[in-house]
Amino acid sequence: MKRDKLVQAVQQQMPEKRWLHTLGVMETSVALANQFGADPVKADLAALLHDYCKYWSIERQKEWVIKEQLPVELLLYDKQLWHGPVAAELVQQEFSIHDEDVINAIRYHTSGRTNMSMLEKIVCLADYMEPGRDFPGVEKIRELSKESIEKALIAGFDSTICFLISKGKKVFPLTIESRNFLIDEIKKYEGGIE
Amino acid sequence: MKRDKLVQAVQQQMPEKRWLHTLGVMETSVALANQFGADPVKADLAALLHDYCKYWSIERQKEWVIKEQLPVELLLYDKQLWHGPVAAELVQQEFSIHDEDVINAIRYHTSGRTNMSMLEKIVCLADYMEPGRDFPGVEKIRELSKESIEKALIAGFDSTICFLISKGKKVFPLTIESRNFLIDEIKKYEGGIE
Repeated sequence: MKRDKLVQAVQQQMPEKRWLHTLGVMETSVALANQFGADPVKADLAALLHDYCKYWSIERQKEWVIKEQLPVELLLYDKQLWHGPVAAELVQQEFSIHDEDVINAIRYHTSGRTNMSMLEKIVCLADYMEPGRDFPGVEKIRELSKESIEKALIAGFDSTICFLISKGKKVFPLTIESRNFLIDEIKKYEGGIE
Repeated sequence: MKRDKLVQAVQQQMPEKRWLHTLGVMETSVALANQFGADPVKADLAALLHDYCKYWSIERQKEWVIKEQLPVELLLYDKQLWHGPVAAELVQQEFSIHDEDVINAIRYHTSGRTNMSMLEKIVCLADYMEPGRDFPGVEKIRELSKESIEKALIAGFDSTICFLISKGKKVFPLTIESRNFLIDEIKKYEGGIE
C-alpha cells in the first residue's frame, strides 16, 4: 500500500488529537533517525503505524492478544501495553508490512525490551518527546536526547515507572529490564564499570 | 546454638549502629508477628540474623554467591542485594538453622519475591520501618502497617524503586515482581478486579 493510502487508513482509526500526536511522533522519529544514523523511511513508517490499534475497544485488543498468541502475561498488566503488540500483528496482515525492525519498533514502542535496535529506541523515545507531549520531565527527556538516545529513553521509562508507582499500579517487568539494559549499555560505551 | 550465644555472634559481626538497627528489626518483627498472626519466635530469629553478612567485604560476599551457587544475576545488580542470600546460606552452615521459612525470610529480606510467606513479609517490612529508620516516606509505611502488611510493604518497595531511579541505578526485577504480586494479592482480598 502506498504511503498516502496508509496515512489515510491510520487517520481514520483515531480522533484528531491522537492523529496530531502520530504526526508528532513521525516528525520526531525522522529527526532522531537522521541524528542517530537510522533509516528515516523506516522511522516514518513505524511511527505512522505505532498507534494504529490504540482506539480499538479493549475487548477487540484482548481478542487479538489471544488469537495471535501474543504473550498472555500482557493481559495481567495495564491495557495501555496491548495496542503495540496488536498493531505489530495487524500491519503484517492488513498492510503486508514485514520489515522485522519496523514491526518490532511498533510492537515494543510502549514497553521497550532488552537489546532494542536503534529504530526501536527512536520510535519509543519519539512517543515520549514529540512536540505535543507535555508532562513533568518531558523537557529533561528532550534535553537528554541531544546527547544520548539511551539516557533520554531511560528518563522516559523513569517517568512511566514513577507515574505507575504514584498510582499504585503494577509495573511491566519488561520495562524494568529494558531500562536496566540501557543503563548497562551506557556503562559499556562510556567504558565504566559498576 | 542458644539464643544468647547467637545474639553475641551477630553483635560481633557489625558496628554498634547496625546492631541497634538489628534490635529494632527484631522488636518490630515480633510486634508484626503478633499483629498478623505469625510465629513471634521465628520472627525474632529471622530478624536477629537478617543482616549477619551485611558488613562482610564485598569480595567475601561475592565469593559466597559463586561458591553457594546463588543466582549469578545477583552480581549484575546492587551489592546491597547480596548479603541476604549469603546470610541464608551462612546460618544453615554455621548455626544449623534449617527452618525453611526463617531461611527464606533472611534470604529475601532486601529483594522480596513473589508469593512471600507472612514471615517473609514481616522481616522485609520491619527492615523498612523499625524505629531507627528515618527516610522520606517511612511514616507513611508505619501508618499503612496498622491496616495492611501488603500495602505497607508496597510503600516500602516504592521507596526503594524511587530511590534507585533517582540515582540512575538498575532496579532488581524480583523487587518489581514482588510489588506486582502484592498488588494482585490486595485486589484478591479486597474482592476487586482490575
